[in-house]
Amino acid sequence: MSGTRRAVILLSGGLDSATVLAIARSSGFACHALSFDYGQRHRAELDAAARVAAQQGAAEHRVFNLDLAVFGGSALTDANIAVPEQASTGIPVTYVPARNTIMLSIALAWAEVLESRDIFIGVNAVDYSGYPDCRPEYIAAFEAMANLATRAGVEGKQLRIHTPLMQLSKAQIVGLGTGLGVDYTATVSCYQADATGRACGVCDACRLRRQGFVEAGVADATRYVASPG
Amino acid sequence: MSGTRRAVILLSGGLDSATVLAIARSSGFACHALSFDYGQRHRAELDAAARVAAQQGAAEHRVFNLDLAVFGGSALTDANIAVPEQASTGIPVTYVPARNTIMLSIALAWAEVLESRDIFIGVNAVDYSGYPDCRPEYIAAFEAMANLATRAGVEGKQLRIHTPLMQLSKAQIVGLGTGLGVDYTATVSCYQADATGRACGVCDACRLRRQGFVEAGVADATRYVASPG
Repeated sequence: MSGTRRAVILLSGGLDSATVLAIARSSGFACHALSFDYGQRHRAELDAAARVAAQQGAAEHRVFNLDLAVFGGSALTDANIAVPEQASTGIPVTYVPARNTIMLSIALAWAEVLESRDIFIGVNAVDYSGYPDCRPEYIAAFEAMANLATRAGVEGKQLRIHTPLMQLSKAQIVGLGTGLGVDYTATVSCYQADATGRACGVCDACRLRRQGFVEAGVADATRYVASPG
Repeated sequence: MSGTRRAVILLSGGLDSATVLAIARSSGFACHALSFDYGQRHRAELDAAARVAAQQGAAEHRVFNLDLAVFGGSALTDANIAVPEQASTGIPVTYVPARNTIMLSIALAWAEVLESRDIFIGVNAVDYSGYPDCRPEYIAAFEAMANLATRAGVEGKQLRIHTPLMQLSKAQIVGLGTGLGVDYTATVSCYQADATGRACGVCDACRLRRQGFVEAGVADATRYVASPG
């Protein structure tokens, strides 16, 4: 490794985390990409994550099994809750209880074993302000907790949670990633993509993504199940 | 449930968490006990957890699979690191990276689904001061983070991490639990218990446990593989 700093990158396989991986790589980190099989409906995401990790030159890519569906409570893991086709107010039903907290905690464990002090996550306070665990104050509190939780923290080595997309619009994210060479056709954002990765075109995630490409002036090669309305 | 408040109790099957479950029950909570299969060597703990949950009248008991061994780095999950027979200074090799953070995060997810605002964990700053994630300042930071992470927190419903054992000696814990009717023969503390739950008698956990019974003046019915030295 000859001094290259290692980072753990939470990689969902979506547009945002693919951009985050490209940012971490361009910052010189050896990137250890971490995805979760958490019983999500849109399993095409995991295939996308593997493609993105390979394309972006991640040092390695691991998938951690996490059976959050056992608790239920979210449209993304509970087949009894419908994925909405309208923008919602308040906390969306697609919110998975404590998801980012759990994923960051597991990233923290891996970072500690890797002797990495840098974790990257693609949370965004602009488009997803309804999720409590995407806000800057939440990330700051997690970072403070993490620095008390770990061996590195006790030894005075400050751990940092990087959120390079926090204040960017979807269009800015698409523009930034395109500049860094991200191939967005490898990514899947849709909450209910089919097994081949084709997007529904009507869920919140699809609408935000499409709008992002339009506003960024970047051609959108996303494959849709049906022509978007 | 007719108004009974629900709590999530982290239940390892050891002496401490069995006492915590008894405390939460005696405080009137409906107790949802949560154990983890995290690749620990001492799997007899999980059998013990099931016995304790049944004996203490938990509302339910779930075992969450969590493959922390995939990352390595601890004597409790990594067969290449020996469990020490001497008291250590600093952070012990039996420390599992980010373990309490991960377990509390998953408890947080379940609490949110259960609409519970109370999580109990048997951490202790007296006997295990070498573990960074057993300290009061760590628990306070986790609680602050949790209240920013969740729907309940956003809605102003304060979530609390209860640590009733934090400042108690092992003898005080044994005395308290005995008074609450805990049957400690159901519990397993040993880091390397055999498949039937018999303790090694020589690891840190065994020594602390035995000393606790002696100092509390409570008969110790722990089954040992060999006569302790």
